[in-house]
Amino acid sequence: MAVETKKKTARKMVYFFGGGHAEGEGDMKILLGGKGAGLAEMTNLGIPVPPGFTITTEVCIEFYRNGMRWPEGLEEEVREGIKRIEELMGARFGDPDNPLLLSVRSGARVSMPGMMDTILNLGTNDVTVQGLAKKTNNPRFAWDCYRRFIQMYGDVVMGVEHEHFEKLIQARKEAKGVKLDVELDASDWQALVEQYKELVNREAGRPFPQDPWEQLRGAIDAVFNSWNNPRAIKYREIHGIPDDWGTAVNVMTMVFGNMGENSGTGVAFTRDPATGEKRFFGEYLPNAQGEDVVAGIRTPMPVAELERRMPDVYQQLVEIYQKLEKHYRDMQDIEFTVQEGKLYMLQTRSGKRTAQAAVKIAVDMVHEGLIDKKTALLRIEPKQLDQLLHKMIDPKAKYEVLTKGLPASPGAAVGRVVFTADEAEEWAKRGEKVILVRAETSPEDIGGMNVAQGILTSRGGMTSHAAVVARGMGKCCVAGAGEVLVEEEAKQFRVRNVVVREGDWITLNGTTGEVILGQVNLVDPSLAGEFGELMSWADEIRKLGVRANADIPRDAKVAREFGAEGIGLCRTEHMFFAPDRIKAVREMILADDVAGRERALAKLLPYQKSDFIGLFREMQGRPVTIRLLDPPLHEFLPQEDEQIEELAREMGVPVEKLKDRVESLKEFNPMLGHRGCRLGITYPEIYNMQVRAIFEAAVELAKEGLKIVPEVMIPLVGTKKELAVLRENAIKVAEEVMAAAGVKLEYHIGTMIEVPRAAVTADEIAQVADFFSFGTNDLTQMTFGFSRDDAGKFLGAYVEKGILPADPFQTLDQDGVGQLVRMGVEKGKKANPKLKTGICGEHGGDPESIDFCHRVGLDYVSCSPYRVPIARLAAAQAQIKNPR
Amino acid sequence: MAVETKKKTARKMVYFFGGGHAEGEGDMKILLGGKGAGLAEMTNLGIPVPPGFTITTEVCIEFYRNGMRWPEGLEEEVREGIKRIEELMGARFGDPDNPLLLSVRSGARVSMPGMMDTILNLGTNDVTVQGLAKKTNNPRFAWDCYRRFIQMYGDVVMGVEHEHFEKLIQARKEAKGVKLDVELDASDWQALVEQYKELVNREAGRPFPQDPWEQLRGAIDAVFNSWNNPRAIKYREIHGIPDDWGTAVNVMTMVFGNMGENSGTGVAFTRDPATGEKRFFGEYLPNAQGEDVVAGIRTPMPVAELERRMPDVYQQLVEIYQKLEKHYRDMQDIEFTVQEGKLYMLQTRSGKRTAQAAVKIAVDMVHEGLIDKKTALLRIEPKQLDQLLHKMIDPKAKYEVLTKGLPASPGAAVGRVVFTADEAEEWAKRGEKVILVRAETSPEDIGGMNVAQGILTSRGGMTSHAAVVARGMGKCCVAGAGEVLVEEEAKQFRVRNVVVREGDWITLNGTTGEVILGQVNLVDPSLAGEFGELMSWADEIRKLGVRANADIPRDAKVAREFGAEGIGLCRTEHMFFAPDRIKAVREMILADDVAGRERALAKLLPYQKSDFIGLFREMQGRPVTIRLLDPPLHEFLPQEDEQIEELAREMGVPVEKLKDRVESLKEFNPMLGHRGCRLGITYPEIYNMQVRAIFEAAVELAKEGLKIVPEVMIPLVGTKKELAVLRENAIKVAEEVMAAAGVKLEYHIGTMIEVPRAAVTADEIAQVADFFSFGTNDLTQMTFGFSRDDAGKFLGAYVEKGILPADPFQTLDQDGVGQLVRMGVEKGKKANPKLKTGICGEHGGDPESIDFCHRVGLDYVSCSPYRVPIARLAAAQAQIKNPR
Repeated sequence: MAVETKKKTARKMVYFFGGGHAEGEGDMKILLGGKGAGLAEMTNLGIPVPPGFTITTEVCIEFYRNGMRWPEGLEEEVREGIKRIEELMGARFGDPDNPLLLSVRSGARVSMPGMMDTILNLGTNDVTVQGLAKKTNNPRFAWDCYRRFIQMYGDVVMGVEHEHFEKLIQARKEAKGVKLDVELDASDWQALVEQYKELVNREAGRPFPQDPWEQLRGAIDAVFNSWNNPRAIKYREIHGIPDDWGTAVNVMTMVFGNMGENSGTGVAFTRDPATGEKRFFGEYLPNAQGEDVVAGIRTPMPVAELERRMPDVYQQLVEIYQKLEKHYRDMQDIEFTVQEGKLYMLQTRSGKRTAQAAVKIAVDMVHEGLIDKKTALLRIEPKQLDQLLHKMIDPKAKYEVLTKGLPASPGAAVGRVVFTADEAEEWAKRGEKVILVRAETSPEDIGGMNVAQGILTSRGGMTSHAAVVARGMGKCCVAGAGEVLVEEEAKQFRVRNVVVREGDWITLNGTTGEVILGQVNLVDPSLAGEFGELMSWADEIRKLGVRANADIPRDAKVAREFGAEGIGLCRTEHMFFAPDRIKAVREMILADDVAGRERALAKLLPYQKSDFIGLFREMQGRPVTIRLLDPPLHEFLPQEDEQIEELAREMGVPVEKLKDRVESLKEFNPMLGHRGCRLGITYPEIYNMQVRAIFEAAVELAKEGLKIVPEVMIPLVGTKKELAVLRENAIKVAEEVMAAAGVKLEYHIGTMIEVPRAAVTADEIAQVADFFSFGTNDLTQMTFGFSRDDAGKFLGAYVEKGILPADPFQTLDQDGVGQLVRMGVEKGKKANPKLKTGICGEHGGDPESIDFCHRVGLDYVSCSPYRVPIARLAAAQAQIKNPR
Repeated sequence: MAVETKKKTARKMVYFFGGGHAEGEGDMKILLGGKGAGLAEMTNLGIPVPPGFTITTEVCIEFYRNGMRWPEGLEEEVREGIKRIEELMGARFGDPDNPLLLSVRSGARVSMPGMMDTILNLGTNDVTVQGLAKKTNNPRFAWDCYRRFIQMYGDVVMGVEHEHFEKLIQARKEAKGVKLDVELDASDWQALVEQYKELVNREAGRPFPQDPWEQLRGAIDAVFNSWNNPRAIKYREIHGIPDDWGTAVNVMTMVFGNMGENSGTGVAFTRDPATGEKRFFGEYLPNAQGEDVVAGIRTPMPVAELERRMPDVYQQLVEIYQKLEKHYRDMQDIEFTVQEGKLYMLQTRSGKRTAQAAVKIAVDMVHEGLIDKKTALLRIEPKQLDQLLHKMIDPKAKYEVLTKGLPASPGAAVGRVVFTADEAEEWAKRGEKVILVRAETSPEDIGGMNVAQGILTSRGGMTSHAAVVARGMGKCCVAGAGEVLVEEEAKQFRVRNVVVREGDWITLNGTTGEVILGQVNLVDPSLAGEFGELMSWADEIRKLGVRANADIPRDAKVAREFGAEGIGLCRTEHMFFAPDRIKAVREMILADDVAGRERALAKLLPYQKSDFIGLFREMQGRPVTIRLLDPPLHEFLPQEDEQIEELAREMGVPVEKLKDRVESLKEFNPMLGHRGCRLGITYPEIYNMQVRAIFEAAVELAKEGLKIVPEVMIPLVGTKKELAVLRENAIKVAEEVMAAAGVKLEYHIGTMIEVPRAAVTADEIAQVADFFSFGTNDLTQMTFGFSRDDAGKFLGAYVEKGILPADPFQTLDQDGVGQLVRMGVEKGKKANPKLKTGICGEHGGDPESIDFCHRVGLDYVSCSPYRVPIARLAAAQAQIKNPR
């Protein structure tokens, strides 16, 4: 114990860098933070970095453990660090004639908003400002430095609001009749320093500290304190960053970009962060400190301009950035300052980039031999790819946003406003592009959604009907735009005082949730080139198959183009809603007996058959898993009195009879009601018709020479017996159809695993299943006891309060639902080693969930067509991280 | 293989009994069937049994395997058996002068309806009938035997319907102008034999067989065939009896009870099957064959009458029945025949008995030293006890049934009809006994149900609101009586053409589902005497604790009287519905902010506190587990426009506001919605009020010297974090209350495990729980994905088609839901060895489920008060079967 304690107190707290050598290294991010590690690494690479030191993240934690006091020995190590800087710089901290000035910056393991901003020019005071003026022969510069320091320090360390300082500057400019800071001279700044000091004394209740050491201690404390400011805490909560990481503190010699025209400051990227193009790209502002760039008062010049102005500096910069990129093997985002013709690097880190750039850079770097394919694949955040798969608003377009909703389904759309699904279809028939605007959508709107360019709703969340269906269709959707007041009868909607009428043009951005008046220019995605190359590498590596959820040939086509290896879920009920079929469906529901139902089903058979022919043909022999009817029958009947009466007239049945039927089909909890295979058990004729349609379609195409392996999927199975009975029924019909056609096909009959009991008894069920497809949407609903339609009322609060790490409908709950999936796979494969397993819930397109699917040994994931590339990449990443 | 086959064919197929020795034994029921084993055992005991033999059940199975043909060797073994009978009886099968007659009966392992009836007098034909007449010197007897034989054989073996024969007898009696069979003489029977033979020839298309061997083969085949008749198959399906048990065939020498006044036949019980009283009890019919007793044409005499008529025979019978009861150590049901003064035993088996008799016999037999306590406990079917715990219709009462519904809650009730809960309360206040009659009940009817003697509904099943609540209250309920048309506005109901008006008397039998016009006499249950003694033995043996689900002091009192060791579930929401509180509840729901909700909750606090004081006081220090608010808030608001408007006026809030609130609280799937601990998370003030009420009640009683250990139960927990947050809140309030009162109490905070995720992550949750109570009602709903309110539409079909062995809401689904319970217990106890575990779903009162609870190691079950004795017995049986 004693030894342990000693070790702890003997731990190095301050890491020095400077003079071509650093005590730290680039891989010490945990201890030194991102910024500190980068500075150390650059120093060791021989890159000019102003000398300084990093106080470790451990010290920050110790500080909190220690009741907000510096740990023993820190003071000495800091003084030692300053001393080493002084020796290298030939200047002294607080020296009246030749003062050393410092910058102090925070620097956690990852960059984090809410942390303390930079404090520059630390060490200036009433005495050293004079020395600085003399030494630089530039009083204006010296007083400007001093006032900047008071302003920053007063704000960040002493809590005096920024605006107070700005007001004083403003007053002085008005008094002098000028507009720009540059028009103020040394005496103006000097006068402002006096006013600033008074201001601080008044607002903070204590004078501005003159002792440089006191200044330094205050700045370091401020960095530590900022680790626990409310914004930082919130950010960590949201992003799951542990509280005990702490932040490092970087104390560094000041270099000045504001010492005249041969000074300046810049930020640059080693490649174009928007396109990924290999060119040095950035901005440079002469005679300025870093904050001037951020303030945006002056327009910076392209960094290339430096080549003309200071060719030597530019040449040196090019060499450095190339060295850094080669060293880090990634695109770098760098900050630098030129002080009187001398270049200093202040920061290097991996640069943020668009999806397009990320793909191009990763692929280019493989070709350049900088990284291997696996590294390239790991460089792309799979979710980012979404940006590349849809029409986008032209990045060059300028527009004003009318209102914002939820970014429910990515992409952009331009069209004329209509307010009903019927109108959408009518207008579309005339060749008009339309945007369907509704309070919320229901299954009856499918037709209209299908022909619309995009969908806008005023109610409903990310998992509302509109959102889910639109994502499935790969169609742009902005949902839950609360400001939009839909007045369907008046054929208009209002946003505050703006009225948008039927036929007016609007533009939607489903990636951001923006609603825009008028037509904005859109651009098409490109799936070839680097994107295609990256995808082909993903396919080489991944073990997990990727299929798509698609109900109609058009979706299947998209899926195939995006690389889907089959259809993992074709929902047959969507077909039932089509206007030419719904009548027969309703006849079936209203029939009094089996014979009546069979008559109605016979009308549906040709439709279903042609649906399947279309799908099979589109998928060109790839597997197609068709799920038999799932929703409760009441979904196919109207619920409102008026509609019921209309339908009764239309169908020629007594209103009362229809009302009775609607009433008798009502359910308290439809999610847990008479649906899925329970329909198949109570009305075998429905499933028999569907199976017949599947096999008649398959044999027809088989005769054309196409190899079809139909996969019949029975939904909502909870017991072995259910599946056994329905499997037997299906086999009977299938064999009958094949015998009649004289064709023999391979086929599979399996089930969704979406009821917890199915997962728990998977060993039983697997005995009568050829495949399992985990329906994690419903499985999540039942495992949590969360109705997806209702959970919106509390799910937000749950995620916000940290009770759930994420919306379990978007990212699979691995601890709970995931355990059932794992159990299902293990028990299932043990009982039936030939069992194929997949997932067809929305999680099949979520990268984190895909990683889980890979680890539990699923054979494939199935997701909406537009998520197929994401899934391919995520599956490759999963294999790289956990080879199987 | 050859050896195996040889062994098989060499297996003994026929077991002989007679002459004081049998080849079989009493414990060979599997091979010989119940009847065959009993006959063998009696023979070995030296009891007079007519000689005969049993063809084994294996032969039956072999018969089916063999394409409905006799296995090789059977013919020989049967002939050998007949030969041995002939030797013992000194008569010959088919002998014209001294013919041997036989009976043939089926006899499976358990008695089963649908199996072949007896065939008597086999061996009679046109020739032997003459010999029989001569030998007995009784032509009438001989021809009567022959015609009986043709009648039975023609019906059972040759498929000629019974009525045809009856019509011929009837015609002859009419022609002769007599009314009774006994008035027909030998020549009548002889003439009828001729008519019978013609009838058979005509109807069956072949003559009645004269060859006795052919007769015998036909009868044996008929027994085999009857194993697979549709009624038998159905019965086996329902009762889970395997198809490969098969039936045995018993071939036995005929003895004749119809040979005059010194002959006769009887059935008797060794103890009174209605009361259990130790007295020989039965009936005897002189000069009759068994079928005459069944036909009920003549009234039999008490068996004791035999003592006077034939003292020797009676004495012998008494010795035999005592021997049998001592031998079998159970009450026996015996059949016997006296032929010309000689007693023959034809059957012995355990006698069926009422619940009351079962208890008395079991306890008496322990006192008599016949059986031990464990055996006594195993003798009682726990569910039977239900009959003993409620008022019953006087067994002596005569009445006519108006209609039948479902036996939703046992017991009987007499009262005057009312149609609304309010009227029920009003009438009850006036001291009237009422029966509440409604189409269906809702939570708002609780008050009326509470004061009613019984409840009758026209809609809803065994798990409807009325049924569940009534069972909880131990109150008689007939539910889903479809013939009852409730006309609430007219204050009447109709059953066909009968109109029952408000105030009319009716009687309900909730044990049978009967609805009776007028007042029928009821009798009270008795819980002392043998019942009390049996229960005390159960308590000595069982390891599983038994608690009750009770919300109010009156239920708690019943529970305590029935032996409950605590309250396992007190639902606080029932208290919220009481008319004096619902207003404050609604104010709370309508409040716009926390402050408003807190004001309304403050009004509820004193009510809740007094509720808990009542409960704690009633339970006298036994543990009381109180569940915090569970149902979604919309359950407390009216749903219909009219009621909403009325309430708005009453509460003085704008109608629109109330409508909006009702609308915003509507849920698609309330079962999976905003309820349970989700309310506690979003509105912490609700749970805080309830916890405050619990602890204020507890400290108040603690000051009186009562030891209270409150158990606070958080419902619907799915994640550790939910429980952790709510536990912390509860502890804060509890400590606050106790500190203020200066009282320190032990208390426990735990959770329901009712969401599948909770069971799966029980190891996590157990870290912050003192106890788990498995809420298997909801757990079953979510594990199966069955909404209890809706599943009625398909659950019936599921059980009927054998997809589910039983309604999983009545008997725990051990394979599915049970696995989750097991997982929950194992993971929970591993993570927290001090964790107490129980069950509080309705399964807690189901014997099969209790056995499961015992085996998975739960600490206690909790059930409705009226099920407590059932649970105590079931728990003892579980321990006897699987000691732990």
